[in-house]
Amino acid sequence: MGFSELNICIVGLGLIGGSIAKGLKDLRPKNLWAIDKNTDILRTAEEENAIDKGFLQAEDILEKSDIVILSLYPEDTVKFIIGNMDSFKSGCIITDTCGLKSAIIRLISKKLRDDIEFIGGHPMAGREAAGFYNSDKAIFYNSNYFITPTAQNSKEALDIVGSLITALGCKNIIAISPEEHDSVIAYTSHLPHILAVSLINCLDTREELKGLIGGSFKDATRVADINSKLWIELLLLNKENLMTTIDCFLDNLIRLKEAISAEDAGYLENEFARASTKRRGIGQ
Amino acid sequence: MGFSELNICIVGLGLIGGSIAKGLKDLRPKNLWAIDKNTDILRTAEEENAIDKGFLQAEDILEKSDIVILSLYPEDTVKFIIGNMDSFKSGCIITDTCGLKSAIIRLISKKLRDDIEFIGGHPMAGREAAGFYNSDKAIFYNSNYFITPTAQNSKEALDIVGSLITALGCKNIIAISPEEHDSVIAYTSHLPHILAVSLINCLDTREELKGLIGGSFKDATRVADINSKLWIELLLLNKENLMTTIDCFLDNLIRLKEAISAEDAGYLENEFARASTKRRGIGQ
Repeated sequence: MGFSELNICIVGLGLIGGSIAKGLKDLRPKNLWAIDKNTDILRTAEEENAIDKGFLQAEDILEKSDIVILSLYPEDTVKFIIGNMDSFKSGCIITDTCGLKSAIIRLISKKLRDDIEFIGGHPMAGREAAGFYNSDKAIFYNSNYFITPTAQNSKEALDIVGSLITALGCKNIIAISPEEHDSVIAYTSHLPHILAVSLINCLDTREELKGLIGGSFKDATRVADINSKLWIELLLLNKENLMTTIDCFLDNLIRLKEAISAEDAGYLENEFARASTKRRGIGQ
Repeated sequence: MGFSELNICIVGLGLIGGSIAKGLKDLRPKNLWAIDKNTDILRTAEEENAIDKGFLQAEDILEKSDIVILSLYPEDTVKFIIGNMDSFKSGCIITDTCGLKSAIIRLISKKLRDDIEFIGGHPMAGREAAGFYNSDKAIFYNSNYFITPTAQNSKEALDIVGSLITALGCKNIIAISPEEHDSVIAYTSHLPHILAVSLINCLDTREELKGLIGGSFKDATRVADINSKLWIELLLLNKENLMTTIDCFLDNLIRLKEAISAEDAGYLENEFARASTKRRGIGQ
């Protein structure tokens, strides 16, 4: 199936949804539609030719869509799919872009019709500013994109989703199980966000100290200006993995604290050597 | 006193010492000398015209130096000053560049001759690569530079050190007490380094996971490739402040963990809002 035969519908024209729209428009699909609750954004997206047409109501357009790409928060993703279950076109492929996969797939699977497929997706792309007006197809260039296939997914559907991701300009498609995705992401994304919040909230905010803040502090807290609603959803849905990762981190930190207190230079030297090797291993 | 009348001696031609040399050479001091234990570096610095002349032995040249700028590790800084106490020129001003001030000043003060002055300094400048061959005067442009005056410092000596720092291109000179410096730096620099080490050491280093590491993890661990010898000295000399800062961080993190475990969205929302406000307050 070529792109020119596909009706693609993007649900949620935020930073990710908008960027996907702009990237896929270049491929000239049969139709590129979008659903959003904000009329201004739909009109702007039409005017900028990021989409062919925008819709406020899902029902009318879902039944003609071959591919539905959701770019919503986790809870809204689940609600949208379950709430519109009767409207999807037979044979359609639904994919999402949430940073959390097991819980979503578990909640959806119970209600998913047999004649449609859901493939979990998670683009490792973004920027600090949110919303459609900051969207840019270039955020995907050379990025990584997770997909989390399950036993219910067909090779054909996976190939189609894979072609779309490649067409966006992503460098790697990483297929792993939803469970492994969530466990890895707990360490590599959720934990750093929690640490950034814990660190910045230690900071004395006296005006005269602001000039004293160096690069290491700024880097360590870069993600502390957190999108509260989204992150509460992500963290609570990944609760079990987070308990494990936070405990691992606490264990390392408390041992370092004890070694500093005891002036145990040998322990510190070992830990710093391990840290250097591991950090060099992941690149800039 | 103009720069053209000053003999300046830099001790230790590493990244910071080399960068200071290159910055000060443009000012055409009477002489710009350097002491280092590495002959190749001294010869290279002379050839590149970063210094007028390099010396392996301190004694000969210290007695002619009006300003001595140390760019050594903390323990070596103390050893150099105390070990060469009889060689300094009467009236000379010594300054250092260590990231830790109280302990150094305490150790030096006991032995410092009455006819010379020590002014603690700490440039908030650097880059990830170390050593003279990576030195560059531009690292100081628009940076902040701490000085930690004490009751023993004269206005004249502080003015001279201030002029040198300004001449390097630094944006701000921040004069605070050695104790406040170390307390602030424990939060803004030492703690982020300890957290980066604790975080990276949690990482599963399976090769296939390396592609999965996002920007938040890379930012949070950017300083984890740590200079072990230097950092063990800095952390152990700032032990008391570090115990307080680590405890503050542990308290925040453990409460976040409990809130996630209890699904206490209200607590998380408050903490995230505080974090957002504080992070916006310190700029990029």
